[in-house]
Amino acid sequence: MPTTVRLGIIGLGAQGSMYAKFISEGLVPNMEIGAIADSDPAKAAVVEADYGVPFFTDYIQMLDSGAVDAVVTCVPHYLHPEIGINALARDVHALVEKPAGVYTKQVKALNDFAATKPELTFGIMFNQRNNPLYIKIKEIVDSGDIGTIRRTNWIITTWWRPQGYYDQSAWRATWGGEGGGVLVNQAPHQLDLLQWICGVPKSVYAKVAYGFRRNIAVEDEVTAVVDYGDGATGVFVTATHDLVGTDRFEILGDQGKIVVEGSKIATVTRLVKPEREISDGMDAADVRKLFTGQFNTAELYTQEVIEYDSAWGAQHSGVLQNFAANILDGTPLLAPGSDGINGVRLANAIHLSSWTGREVSLDFDEDDYLAELNKRISEEGTFGQRG
Amino acid sequence: MPTTVRLGIIGLGAQGSMYAKFISEGLVPNMEIGAIADSDPAKAAVVEADYGVPFFTDYIQMLDSGAVDAVVTCVPHYLHPEIGINALARDVHALVEKPAGVYTKQVKALNDFAATKPELTFGIMFNQRNNPLYIKIKEIVDSGDIGTIRRTNWIITTWWRPQGYYDQSAWRATWGGEGGGVLVNQAPHQLDLLQWICGVPKSVYAKVAYGFRRNIAVEDEVTAVVDYGDGATGVFVTATHDLVGTDRFEILGDQGKIVVEGSKIATVTRLVKPEREISDGMDAADVRKLFTGQFNTAELYTQEVIEYDSAWGAQHSGVLQNFAANILDGTPLLAPGSDGINGVRLANAIHLSSWTGREVSLDFDEDDYLAELNKRISEEGTFGQRG
Repeated sequence: MPTTVRLGIIGLGAQGSMYAKFISEGLVPNMEIGAIADSDPAKAAVVEADYGVPFFTDYIQMLDSGAVDAVVTCVPHYLHPEIGINALARDVHALVEKPAGVYTKQVKALNDFAATKPELTFGIMFNQRNNPLYIKIKEIVDSGDIGTIRRTNWIITTWWRPQGYYDQSAWRATWGGEGGGVLVNQAPHQLDLLQWICGVPKSVYAKVAYGFRRNIAVEDEVTAVVDYGDGATGVFVTATHDLVGTDRFEILGDQGKIVVEGSKIATVTRLVKPEREISDGMDAADVRKLFTGQFNTAELYTQEVIEYDSAWGAQHSGVLQNFAANILDGTPLLAPGSDGINGVRLANAIHLSSWTGREVSLDFDEDDYLAELNKRISEEGTFGQRG
Repeated sequence: MPTTVRLGIIGLGAQGSMYAKFISEGLVPNMEIGAIADSDPAKAAVVEADYGVPFFTDYIQMLDSGAVDAVVTCVPHYLHPEIGINALARDVHALVEKPAGVYTKQVKALNDFAATKPELTFGIMFNQRNNPLYIKIKEIVDSGDIGTIRRTNWIITTWWRPQGYYDQSAWRATWGGEGGGVLVNQAPHQLDLLQWICGVPKSVYAKVAYGFRRNIAVEDEVTAVVDYGDGATGVFVTATHDLVGTDRFEILGDQGKIVVEGSKIATVTRLVKPEREISDGMDAADVRKLFTGQFNTAELYTQEVIEYDSAWGAQHSGVLQNFAANILDGTPLLAPGSDGINGVRLANAIHLSSWTGREVSLDFDEDDYLAELNKRISEEGTFGQRG
């Protein structure tokens, strides 16, 4: 029985190079680099010098070469579903980068195909799911400790990107090449965590600013109100133009509250009983005491502060290791590939709401979204339509 | 020339009693209690015992008695405009409690009438405008220090109210008696400060929860997205069911950011130059440095922490003192009465948006709002229609 998975890295850009480095440095004990593919032939020399593994300009040839058991897709987002399908079709395990794709129709095709290959491992690089703090927060919410969720609020504007970042490549921050801005590139982590921890919303209303403070076609700021369908609502704010950004995630439940700051420290408030029972149990005299400062609400709850030192790289290598472990011995996946559609669906619905000025069901028609997206790709005139 | 203003207190409930206490204890040096009116004749004995001033069950008789130079309206919100007009019509200065009224049509009538009496003082009890921290924040924003506003975000859920609070009086938390919930009773302070500091929005979209976690007809939770019309947007969240509530106000500008926590401590970030210039001034090499952690953005800004110890009562007595000073020597009003309509308009627009499911212009038709409000009053069946 093999003890390591031979990974094929598709795309040796910033992300692909980082994974290659992690693996070659032994940070992922159950993984080795099987081969590397990049459409740029100039990368051959780098691969030879740094890793000494086979190099392919055509990733299909790599899939067919027998040199890799699995692949990771470090290429522009539009290509993830197609590459994922091509890998799985050749019985090669697939780890797709986030986002799973740009529009739900293509991600659904990937998920549908993956479902026909249950013997293969299909994962997604949601490295933040490997952040011990968020794992702990999910455990607390799942345990019912803070009760049914009433409200969520995530301000995640720490994704500051200067204009020079957008000007790096012609495809970046375009409708045809990238398919969106902060929702598609930076915030998919939080769009995933939000749903992983708090559940999938039923509808969304959004104000989205396109090229607001950057010279780009796509969104650099988003304000979204989500509705969970059971009375609970949430706010999600993200932007790439806040130099000293905020990362503050608040979850209010029927019996407590969690406030996560900087994705590093969480204050967990647990009420001694459900808030509504506390409310109903206070008589007129208690209310008078409350208003005259004689009622100490601090006796009604406990607070715990949780903090982890989380290394950024460890999150990614942890996902790689978990993916390999699933292949090798069936260890459950932290981030099953099929989960990727949730974040894409929410991002699509946010776009759609901003384009229509209306609240949008998460059950929107995927062809409607694609048509709107293609309209923007056509107006841009640089890339071909999708679908 | 008189050196004190003789105040008539209309309504000797919780608020009116507090003001009477402040004045009788000398906390408002330029004010004395001229008389007190309350529709409950049983209050006569209290007034005689505690204050020794004339008592009236009919406030109109108090206005006509010559015993008062000014009044403050400590009665249910619906009555503020009518009482304000009756006072001003008799050349008695008027300080209205917040909110200025329940619906803009009545507040507009008050403002229009007050405009015909420019020689009289017309103020509103926005005591939070007398919080030194918010005065300082307004100065910083007005000075242009943080540049043009891009985004605002206020989570103000520290208005926890148990069921017993709502059950105190039959009018409370009803459409006919109070005309709304947290928007009308608790949050008017923040609805005012938001606009006082950041400007009046052009439109709003809101999710409002009516009787969500309390047995009331009106709203106990609000999530609103405001649009300032120039690309800037904001989020406003308030609720009365969060036992360990949040009060966090964030203002992002083109050249800095302010985060106020607990209405007590503010972190002011000032960028060394406009954010967009910083963004445009970074070349590809800088971007690489940024992504490899070699670019220290901390050199691009300074941070200042501002904290004041603010006494709750001092805010109210300060507004009373400022109101009296305006009468006596023309000292500018901290909170001119005519400003009260802004908060009412925003609250009405938030209701209207939640009822229609659509974004609502702040320039909505005031008759439309009143019709919707009266529909709810009729369905409730306890109080008569308004208007």
